[in-house]
Amino acid sequence: MAAIIPIPLPQNSYNVVIAAGELSALGTWMTGEVMVGQMGKRALLVSNPTVFAHYGETALASLRAAGFEVAHHLIPDGEQYKTLDAIAAIYNAALAHRLERSSVMVALGGGVVGDMTGFAAATWLRGISFVQVPTSLLAMVDASIGGKTGVNHPQGKNLIGAFHQPRLVLIDPDVLATLPEREFRAGMAEVIKYGVIWDLGLFERLEQSAACDRYDRTSPDLLHHILVQSCQAKADVVSRDEKEGGLRAILNYGHTLGHAIESLMNYEGIVHGEGVALGMVAAGHLAHRLGLWSGAENQRQQGLIDKAQLPRQIPPQLSIEAMVDLLASDKKVKDGKVRFVLPTAIGSVTITDQVPGDLIGSVVADLQVPGGS
Amino acid sequence: MAAIIPIPLPQNSYNVVIAAGELSALGTWMTGEVMVGQMGKRALLVSNPTVFAHYGETALASLRAAGFEVAHHLIPDGEQYKTLDAIAAIYNAALAHRLERSSVMVALGGGVVGDMTGFAAATWLRGISFVQVPTSLLAMVDASIGGKTGVNHPQGKNLIGAFHQPRLVLIDPDVLATLPEREFRAGMAEVIKYGVIWDLGLFERLEQSAACDRYDRTSPDLLHHILVQSCQAKADVVSRDEKEGGLRAILNYGHTLGHAIESLMNYEGIVHGEGVALGMVAAGHLAHRLGLWSGAENQRQQGLIDKAQLPRQIPPQLSIEAMVDLLASDKKVKDGKVRFVLPTAIGSVTITDQVPGDLIGSVVADLQVPGGS
Ligand SMILES: NC(=O)c1ccc[n+]([C@@H]2O[C@H](COP(=O)([O-])OP(=O)(O)OC[C@H]3O[C@@H](n4cnc5c(N)ncnc54)[C@H](O)[C@@H]3O)[C@@H](O)[C@H]2O)c1
Ligand SMILES: NC(=O)c1ccc[n+]([C@@H]2O[C@H](COP(=O)([O-])OP(=O)(O)OC[C@H]3O[C@@H](n4cnc5c(N)ncnc54)[C@H](O)[C@@H]3O)[C@@H](O)[C@H]2O)c1
Ligand SMILES: [Zn+2]
Ligand SMILES: [Zn+2]
Repeated sequence: MAAIIPIPLPQNSYNVVIAAGELSALGTWMTGEVMVGQMGKRALLVSNPTVFAHYGETALASLRAAGFEVAHHLIPDGEQYKTLDAIAAIYNAALAHRLERSSVMVALGGGVVGDMTGFAAATWLRGISFVQVPTSLLAMVDASIGGKTGVNHPQGKNLIGAFHQPRLVLIDPDVLATLPEREFRAGMAEVIKYGVIWDLGLFERLEQSAACDRYDRTSPDLLHHILVQSCQAKADVVSRDEKEGGLRAILNYGHTLGHAIESLMNYEGIVHGEGVALGMVAAGHLAHRLGLWSGAENQRQQGLIDKAQLPRQIPPQLSIEAMVDLLASDKKVKDGKVRFVLPTAIGSVTITDQVPGDLIGSVVADLQVPGGS
Repeated sequence: MAAIIPIPLPQNSYNVVIAAGELSALGTWMTGEVMVGQMGKRALLVSNPTVFAHYGETALASLRAAGFEVAHHLIPDGEQYKTLDAIAAIYNAALAHRLERSSVMVALGGGVVGDMTGFAAATWLRGISFVQVPTSLLAMVDASIGGKTGVNHPQGKNLIGAFHQPRLVLIDPDVLATLPEREFRAGMAEVIKYGVIWDLGLFERLEQSAACDRYDRTSPDLLHHILVQSCQAKADVVSRDEKEGGLRAILNYGHTLGHAIESLMNYEGIVHGEGVALGMVAAGHLAHRLGLWSGAENQRQQGLIDKAQLPRQIPPQLSIEAMVDLLASDKKVKDGKVRFVLPTAIGSVTITDQVPGDLIGSVVADLQVPGGS
């Protein structure tokens, strides 16, 4: 099975390829017809030691076989290395390997490697090509598509960055075999997100599956379907709104609160998808308490999140006050008002900045009580 | 006298305003009709201590009067501070001043401040608005227009950067009053460049003027004319080729060798425009020796460069070998071949990668001999 999902944009269209086992043909995909336009043969593969140990040689061999002169550079594994300093190290590698304007960077890894490689490519020689080879479920269905690239500022996630579209996204679901369970579940948070904000059919398909577990082992076909539907949802949204002017904001569903929680925990003991899951739970309750969403549908969302074994409780040590304060400094704030993406029905959401601060505090407090909400 | 030169681009059109005394109306220009589209009222003014001492308060007062909530951040003065670390400091100021996506950065200074502010704006929150208020002649006629932004890598100039168009360029020629003589002359190098590559009329007008000196004191009208023609030349080129796909390369006339010389001198004892002047002299000789350009026109270029009191000799301590080597690592290199922009007639140039290495060496050697060439 191979699916090709086009991302049509005014200037930088590209394709997302979903095809099991195709990592070993990466070089061929990068020179073939799905690759829009031409590029040079100097390449820098960027990865981290964890992912590179599993898939680095396969990727390098495939690039070499297709005629690329490829070097590689490894970033230490972890969100805490998503920094400007680590970008400077990629620049050094780009210089050492004499990348030219026509050269390409290839990101082999999860969202951290993808975001950083994309940002380095966006800013090296004022922008060179890059290719995404996402290896985590989250990166496959979300981070690798849409052209958002960047790194964290010591005081805030993804504050530094640029829009820079990849030339190709190659998704090989087989690499999920080595992805830790917890990371798989985290990716499912984004999949559930697409169900709630955009795709009722995907949501129902997830509800129908017996368990929400390692589809890569239990049901490769369902996994393929999930990947295709999720990538298509993201493609639909970003191709209608390349630079987050309007519609794209709905992709932040669950992220406003999710980011605040991740940040207050200093990104320790929590992964991005878990923050998103908590954010979706909170947003669901907010929407319900504001009379925007039915209790029954809110329960269905809760049910899927539980089935995916994602957290529904906010760690008790987090200060609610600090969280509400932090929201006000979120980069999605407009003129001082916090904007929330809230569901109105499974498959559609609304955006509002009319959520009272005390309601946020109350919903979050409920989520701290074990068994609450 | 006020001139407005539009820079028409598919997505990010903007205007260049040339108007004496208008720095004190900066805020008004930023809210008026020449400012395409809307923006928010939080602003960060970026400058350096030298420029800020002269014009900072005027700019800040004008922004406040127009309703902007403005803070300022100063970068140390000098090309050696055009680094990623200094960008990180701008990010900190942006965070401290709580810039939002709708906010704006304002660059008040020469090309260094402009390039850095533009890069910070390009990469803060994945791109916010910025306005150029160039204060050096070079920044007025060149650096502030066209959307090239960036910083230096320890091993190469402007290797790190992004394309990010300003929302407005406001040129107030009155601020040139405090510009050091040498910097004025350096700016004249770029003006002469436009004459050679694009605008015979401008070239002839410069030839007709008695001396090529501080027009801001001797002839404000001629200065206005020079600014308008130069900005128009740059506008013509960049609006036909926003991201340096082809035509825009002609703006690099004199820059290939110029950059190499600046770099080998570690950017000490030479300013950018002086490098460009030397590069133009060398390119002129190359073109002549290759039979592309008449000796008479080459002499006319030489005459203007002399009249502008720009250098025509390469410092004797520079190694010719090192220079030829360095050219091969220039970011304008394509597939290992050095591309040169060479004049064919005053007002037009050609681009070629067919310049033999030993010819380059020979021309450069001639320029090292006092009184040579
Ligand atoms: N650009 C965007 O639009 C966007 C969207 C969502 C998230 N993000 C960013 O993505 C990041 C999160 O991405 P992530 O969840 O992939 O985190 P990650 O990149 O840190 O990967 C998670 C962990 O899984 C490991 N891993 C990845 N693939 C593996 C594989 N196949 N086998 C074994 N181990 C593997 C990684 O080494 C890492 O330890 C965050 O920084 C977030 O800001 C970006
Ligand atoms: N983005 C582009 O397209 C582009 C084009 C050409 C050059 N550049 C860049 O521009 C830089 C060179 O610009 P520059 O020549 O303006 O150098 P600069 O910014 O260093 O300014 C030169 C000196 O003049 C001072 N100065 C500037 N305006 C003044 C004023 N009105 N009164 C008193 N002092 C003043 C500055 O403080 C500095 O000391 C280089 O970094 C170069 O890479 C960029
Ligand atoms: Zn996410
Ligand atoms: Zn220049």
